[in-house]
Amino acid sequence: MADIRALTFDVFGTVVDWRSGVAREAEAVLAPRGHVLDWAIFADRWRALYVPAMAKVSRGERPFVILDVLHRENLVALLKTDGVEGLADAEIDQLNRAWHRLDPWPDVVDGLTRLKRRFILATLSNGNIALMVNMAKRGALPWDVILGAEVARAYKPTAEAYDRTAGFLQLAPEECLMVAAHASDLRAAAARGFRTAYVHRPDEYGPSRAGRPWPGDAFDYALADFAALADALGA
Amino acid sequence: MADIRALTFDVFGTVVDWRSGVAREAEAVLAPRGHVLDWAIFADRWRALYVPAMAKVSRGERPFVILDVLHRENLVALLKTDGVEGLADAEIDQLNRAWHRLDPWPDVVDGLTRLKRRFILATLSNGNIALMVNMAKRGALPWDVILGAEVARAYKPTAEAYDRTAGFLQLAPEECLMVAAHASDLRAAAARGFRTAYVHRPDEYGPSRAGRPWPGDAFDYALADFAALADALGA
Repeated sequence: MADIRALTFDVFGTVVDWRSGVAREAEAVLAPRGHVLDWAIFADRWRALYVPAMAKVSRGERPFVILDVLHRENLVALLKTDGVEGLADAEIDQLNRAWHRLDPWPDVVDGLTRLKRRFILATLSNGNIALMVNMAKRGALPWDVILGAEVARAYKPTAEAYDRTAGFLQLAPEECLMVAAHASDLRAAAARGFRTAYVHRPDEYGPSRAGRPWPGDAFDYALADFAALADALGA
Repeated sequence: MADIRALTFDVFGTVVDWRSGVAREAEAVLAPRGHVLDWAIFADRWRALYVPAMAKVSRGERPFVILDVLHRENLVALLKTDGVEGLADAEIDQLNRAWHRLDPWPDVVDGLTRLKRRFILATLSNGNIALMVNMAKRGALPWDVILGAEVARAYKPTAEAYDRTAGFLQLAPEECLMVAAHASDLRAAAARGFRTAYVHRPDEYGPSRAGRPWPGDAFDYALADFAALADALGA
């Protein structure tokens, strides 16, 4: 079997804690304007609009647009639903960039720093380039290369998102290890020939879902965090 | 004037010494087969085929292909001219990847490491993604993001190469500082609103051209190396 040369990472949920970060940023923008919402639930509701919005692109119902554009459309709809009115465009943009300002899980930077010595570390996220760059600068994420939806012009879990990413790296898919906290992403990567590492992130969806089980799928690795991933890969 | 947020780097000649690296790699592949060439001149001749090959893409005479493809076509032509026969495809591929295995100039890694603390460091090279990634892993180049021709689907010095790169970063062009050892690249970047830093690389074209003068153009910065660039930018 070919050696693993690159690790390709899902980011939202796997690398960073989107829920508490988006909740914090929403509160920072909206609370001073007198809005009282359940901020974590606001984050969940915003996040819930993301898959259907991407699916329209993936089904060819609209041309490719970057995730910032989808997030902003979904945010405007959400604010309307919640009766939040009168935000200036620049304030909506600032809130939309909440997704650029998410914190990594505590094990991430140390784990990636170890893994970087042995492997190419690539993002394979649906997030766009500027989002990934800003997040990485803020959180000291030591990526070698930002790949994913904007570079591939295709969203996961379409085949093109995985195929083109391996192609950009000039690697066979089996030389790429997809790392994700989501079984659906890993199943789609495996179907394109990637190897797979599931990392359990019990807190991704908040305390009420922290006890959910690990997936039953047989992935190449199933691990508790990035330190365990580095251990498993001898990094 | 807007603050500089990102430094966008030309790579061949500005960051890495392509001439001695290509000469070394060509000798390593061809000398054991009994070929005796002036390896540095071989590198010069290979390099000389690159601008006309790119220009065909930029003029729309052929669809976009990555630099590895252009390099390989030019290599095959050069080997034929030189009467080098009988190389297997895998050997030609190995020689073509000489461009993935070039060393940075001695000041580069320290300078980039300082600059990375204050700025987004992006490649804006005509080299393709895998080339940039392999070169960076080998030479410990701490890029934040690999941009350039393959991501923009356009070669420098076309306007699209610069415009799209600033766009990927969601920056205004004046927030981007183009760093290059070539006045033509800087002039094209300036025409798209980028700020410009010329770095003098006297050894790029070998000892016979080491005494050539600095360009007379008025760039925002004109510096001797990346340490001076970091000094000038307060990094």
